[in-house]
Amino acid sequence: MDKSFRYTVLSSTQNATFKSVMKLRDRRDREKRRLTVLEGYRELTRAQEYGMELVECFFAPEMFLGENEFTVLKSLADAGVRVYQVPPFMLEKMAYRDRPEGLIATAKMLRHTLDDLPVVENGLYLVAEAVEKPGNLGSMLRSADAAGVDGMIICDKTTDIYNPNVIRASTGALFAVPLAEATTDETFAWLRKHNIKILSATPHTDNIYTDVDLTTSVAIAVGTEQTGLTERWMTECDLPVVIPMLGQIDSLNVATATTILLYEAARQRNWKMHGKR
Amino acid sequence: MDKSFRYTVLSSTQNATFKSVMKLRDRRDREKRRLTVLEGYRELTRAQEYGMELVECFFAPEMFLGENEFTVLKSLADAGVRVYQVPPFMLEKMAYRDRPEGLIATAKMLRHTLDDLPVVENGLYLVAEAVEKPGNLGSMLRSADAAGVDGMIICDKTTDIYNPNVIRASTGALFAVPLAEATTDETFAWLRKHNIKILSATPHTDNIYTDVDLTTSVAIAVGTEQTGLTERWMTECDLPVVIPMLGQIDSLNVATATTILLYEAARQRNWKMHGKR
Repeated sequence: MDKSFRYTVLSSTQNATFKSVMKLRDRRDREKRRLTVLEGYRELTRAQEYGMELVECFFAPEMFLGENEFTVLKSLADAGVRVYQVPPFMLEKMAYRDRPEGLIATAKMLRHTLDDLPVVENGLYLVAEAVEKPGNLGSMLRSADAAGVDGMIICDKTTDIYNPNVIRASTGALFAVPLAEATTDETFAWLRKHNIKILSATPHTDNIYTDVDLTTSVAIAVGTEQTGLTERWMTECDLPVVIPMLGQIDSLNVATATTILLYEAARQRNWKMHGKR
Repeated sequence: MDKSFRYTVLSSTQNATFKSVMKLRDRRDREKRRLTVLEGYRELTRAQEYGMELVECFFAPEMFLGENEFTVLKSLADAGVRVYQVPPFMLEKMAYRDRPEGLIATAKMLRHTLDDLPVVENGLYLVAEAVEKPGNLGSMLRSADAAGVDGMIICDKTTDIYNPNVIRASTGALFAVPLAEATTDETFAWLRKHNIKILSATPHTDNIYTDVDLTTSVAIAVGTEQTGLTERWMTECDLPVVIPMLGQIDSLNVATATTILLYEAARQRNWKMHGKR
């Protein structure tokens, strides 16, 4: 194994650098320092690829699953990231996963505003209001990426998008999908300004989602699993649609419902993306 | 509050009944005793409604969220279920959820075989091979219920379907969807015998899932998130199909992919179920 890069060995949980990473488990600390935690080979390489700025990287070679970890570490060290070797027990303490893969990094959070979103002809957008569970947000990001959305707006957020569990559940889509965080007012103003129609999912309509035209600029809006979208999305939307449920339970996971709507749009668009990412 | 039903008060974690429920956290113990654990008002009422046999029920009124819990308890007690009041700390120990709602029950596991599945004209079936995560299995059950499948086959299972986390994630769909557990050989034989076409999701084809006819008897087969379906499902299937991914990450959650396929079938069937549940 090629360890021809600069790194420091840490061995004590009393070390200030280690303690500082552990503090990032607290959302307030992440937001104050604008830092989050990434882990695993795939996440780190994707984060790098999509332009996240990594600050520190910790590795425990005893836990590596593959053989390319040292290549990544070398490229990080060469790029100025501070690299630390730690014993497995310390890496386990820092990790969020049950079976950590021996690589953890801190990265600077980006700020995502509506100005960062591309405005394209016949664009496809996703608006997620008040998503509560990190796993659902991660899953929605994967579907948004796969269905080729031009941008996703996290509206009145309740979940920190840089929660390490969101990053993990998104399998990297968090870095690939153009994102904005905004209030409801800001989101409505932006959508109206750009003539983007609003589609709201609701049980209170007879319009089936497959019967509406999703080929022109449209934003698909979804609310929480428990209570759906708030009032304004219902009264001011252009296209209220229902996803039929034929069974007995009458409940779809919010990420699942989102995917059904996004993939219907992608089908109607003949699997062509209008914008380019 | 109306407690006009028979119940016993337990207050010690040394109590044999309490210890016996705690042991059900172990899959081997659940399978040996053919018992599982349900919790919360919605799960208990649905389980009852769909014919699960409850054995014991534990309640901590301090934790109740609604006002109908005592009605449920009375109906359970009247039906011969043994009912126990416990202090909140004991109920918390028994619970799987972060915020338990003060109601937990043990219930007999049913055995599900292929003979239990309805065979209907132009039926829609789901085959899930080796699903690993309880959350994914639960989510697939919700989608199977919502899309109106006539039956779901859990093929070469790796996850215990009566894992309390599956029950929770399925929000009751586990009780509503006709289920079978079977080996790959048994599943192929059953599908062939009943002239049910096999659709396999794979990245290795150019057939888009929306371009195939899903209106006659069909079983939608999905594999694991990591490795997809095993070889036989690829070589012996009738309809290999791909779900296009337009983004950069090239990964959909397995439950999400399943839903996309099931909802395309439901759309092609004009939201009509062929069988009746």
